[in-house]
Amino acid sequence: MQTSELTAMTVTEAAALIERRSLSPVELTRAYLERIERLNPTINAYVTVTAEQALAAAREAELQILAGGYLGPLHGVPFALKDIYDTAGIRTAAGSKILADRVPAADATSTARFHQAGAVLLGKLNTHEFAFGVTTNNPHWGATRNPWGLEQIPGGSSGGSGAAIAADLAPIAMGTDTGGSIRIPASLCGTVGLKPTHGRISTAGIFPLSWSLDHAGPLTHTVEDAAIVLNALAGPDPLDTLTPPVPVADYRAELGAGVRGLRLGVPRAGFCEALEPDVARAFETALDVLRGLGATVEDVDAPALWASWEPGYNILYSEARHVHKQWLRDRPGDYGKDVLTRLNERAALTADDLVAAFRYQSAAIREAQALLEQRSALLLPATRIAAPSINPQQTIVLDGNEVLARSVLTTNTIPFNLTGMPALSLPCGFTQAGLPIGLQIAGRRWDEATVLRVAHAYEQATDWHTRRPEVRA
Amino acid sequence: MQTSELTAMTVTEAAALIERRSLSPVELTRAYLERIERLNPTINAYVTVTAEQALAAAREAELQILAGGYLGPLHGVPFALKDIYDTAGIRTAAGSKILADRVPAADATSTARFHQAGAVLLGKLNTHEFAFGVTTNNPHWGATRNPWGLEQIPGGSSGGSGAAIAADLAPIAMGTDTGGSIRIPASLCGTVGLKPTHGRISTAGIFPLSWSLDHAGPLTHTVEDAAIVLNALAGPDPLDTLTPPVPVADYRAELGAGVRGLRLGVPRAGFCEALEPDVARAFETALDVLRGLGATVEDVDAPALWASWEPGYNILYSEARHVHKQWLRDRPGDYGKDVLTRLNERAALTADDLVAAFRYQSAAIREAQALLEQRSALLLPATRIAAPSINPQQTIVLDGNEVLARSVLTTNTIPFNLTGMPALSLPCGFTQAGLPIGLQIAGRRWDEATVLRVAHAYEQATDWHTRRPEVRA
Repeated sequence: MQTSELTAMTVTEAAALIERRSLSPVELTRAYLERIERLNPTINAYVTVTAEQALAAAREAELQILAGGYLGPLHGVPFALKDIYDTAGIRTAAGSKILADRVPAADATSTARFHQAGAVLLGKLNTHEFAFGVTTNNPHWGATRNPWGLEQIPGGSSGGSGAAIAADLAPIAMGTDTGGSIRIPASLCGTVGLKPTHGRISTAGIFPLSWSLDHAGPLTHTVEDAAIVLNALAGPDPLDTLTPPVPVADYRAELGAGVRGLRLGVPRAGFCEALEPDVARAFETALDVLRGLGATVEDVDAPALWASWEPGYNILYSEARHVHKQWLRDRPGDYGKDVLTRLNERAALTADDLVAAFRYQSAAIREAQALLEQRSALLLPATRIAAPSINPQQTIVLDGNEVLARSVLTTNTIPFNLTGMPALSLPCGFTQAGLPIGLQIAGRRWDEATVLRVAHAYEQATDWHTRRPEVRA
Repeated sequence: MQTSELTAMTVTEAAALIERRSLSPVELTRAYLERIERLNPTINAYVTVTAEQALAAAREAELQILAGGYLGPLHGVPFALKDIYDTAGIRTAAGSKILADRVPAADATSTARFHQAGAVLLGKLNTHEFAFGVTTNNPHWGATRNPWGLEQIPGGSSGGSGAAIAADLAPIAMGTDTGGSIRIPASLCGTVGLKPTHGRISTAGIFPLSWSLDHAGPLTHTVEDAAIVLNALAGPDPLDTLTPPVPVADYRAELGAGVRGLRLGVPRAGFCEALEPDVARAFETALDVLRGLGATVEDVDAPALWASWEPGYNILYSEARHVHKQWLRDRPGDYGKDVLTRLNERAALTADDLVAAFRYQSAAIREAQALLEQRSALLLPATRIAAPSINPQQTIVLDGNEVLARSVLTTNTIPFNLTGMPALSLPCGFTQAGLPIGLQIAGRRWDEATVLRVAHAYEQATDWHTRRPEVRA
């Protein structure tokens, strides 16, 4: 195989070859390292490449597999982590200047679970500073570029993760999602991005933005790849007090059931209004595809979900301020301007404001549960626009109103942070300018299986997930 | 059987007779109603007695059982509810003047589950006003008396529940516990009181005090009776967004495993210091009983649990204020003096104070989890003193310091509201003045089974649970 063929594979494809010893983990790892060396200077997805450790881990995996000790579909498969996942002995800077030299002693729980599964860490991925923003235009570590258009942002905060998948610089890139930070880069970079139920994957050892809304999850090429990662990472963790012992399914085994007979809801008001026209067209076409597969697609009202923004940000900003309290006093000059501004917003909130936000959260969950009592999932655009320009002043006219492009990126994602529902973005088309468009599927809490099933059915009926940008070094 | 023999039975005993049709639910219900009529004017456990509906429900249960439709161990068994559980068509005043005329349209989830199990509602039990206090000396509905000493408080806020069990006015009395409100009356009235894991029993339709700390649970004569109730009520509820789909055990089936070989921890510092001397003696004797049964009992350090009071009350008071916001503005004169004072405390807390309290909660949970990694449960006195006088000014000298008696009642209970751990109080002796003493057993989150198992082993080795006060009309 050519190097570029190796790095174009999905996890599912690579794992099948590795299992039957037709592909060497060392060869695969080397192919990724070479591609990273060639393209990362252009994309800036990685902030740290752990080439030596990766090759050593790949050799170890190879020996173990040759000795008959195959562990499963992540064994010998490369992966990369957003640089807010702790990695023992490897710098974890959270996209900041403040932690630029921090080398954790221990792995995050998710990092450790990858290692236990025999996966091979390629390195650490760029993020919006402290994961608090959606552009990954990082003042300390440089801007990450969107592989589909180098003048476009990849989204964020897991922008390095989205760009790494899109540019074939890793087959698995872990992100985190507090207001959309997995699904926005997935949408803007044309990848799959899964935010599981809040509490499904431990966030212990991941630098917090807002505990009540933080989720860890994978960006991958396909839904099946996301299911493979979820299988390895899901389940309670004594170090994360927000992970109850809810049973875990075999998410990969349940993918193939199709959507025939399922009822799917489309929250039209708000979520499907004032879309970029190409996004609106792609979304309607996606609904037709699902109808063609036998699903019933019907409009629903979700006013509490749509109005989640304000209470959601009250929780997010209050918890974020608490995390950064000491540094806001001691080192305000070491933050980028946008993050510093954000950290100082909503500083006057009272305990009662925060209690009210948590009460709103409960109401939003109940609204969503009622909608999903008779329905399997909700469908909506992951982002109302495709990737905006890297120029922070870019505006876009939506429904006759000129708005700052980046300001509309989280409206369709943060409601599912507040409700903790599983939500996934997957590619559903391109704009006329050639930028990817994301379809979002959100399901019942703890029911990732149905979200993945609907996504897989759509993906199998389309070929958007097979497209790759042409990236020149 | 004599009427007094009927009402002295445990749920387990009554259910066994009902199942084999040796006892009529109507006869049993009538016995309780007669006893309530005779003794309630003295005890004031009930604020509402639903005699007619109870007899109708008992007749229906009897017919169904005679027709071969036996539903299980609650079928035809009387029960009573703290007056903050919604009951369709039956006044639910939450111990307040403000809601004195409120008649809910629908049952609380737990109310409905009792009805589904075929149980017979006897009536509604007195509570501290809005469940916000520990004396049940209610300015609107009168003081509930402790059946073991009519000049003593029964504890609270579920004081009517504790008194009803102690005086044989019901075999099951549901309470709620936000800072100790099930375990304190259980301790002071000599009953079993179980606060399950936060989220194990739905609190939907129960008037809230503080969602983050509110728990519903039973007061009963025995541990087996508590397990029977837990079996009927445990499990997720779509109406309560804080009940994740964690699997439920058959708690009754797992009771008999004993404690041989188990390691049990005693958090000495704080929790076992400055005890009333009779409480200290009874507690040490209880530890010896458990050692005699083959358990290893060892001291542990739990400083974060001991210091839970301050962050716990920051959460409790903030959420309680939010519940009462409108009435505090419109109807301050309709609150009792103590509750109004409490509702106006901690009014100046900021969002950051509340975030800090939730962070403390996470640390306390991790401390407890670490202690219980190698141990099965923690043992400590449920209350540091036996039932104080109904006179609010009563002081007690503990370790040389004179303190207001009621002020020390929650120190050993609220930590397990903050951590959400299951915790149970059961009788472990009497003071020289003849007042009951409670042993508290706290376990891992979601592991009620082990708490019940340890409690059952202790109970089977002692006869404190068989003692009853002599109550004169």
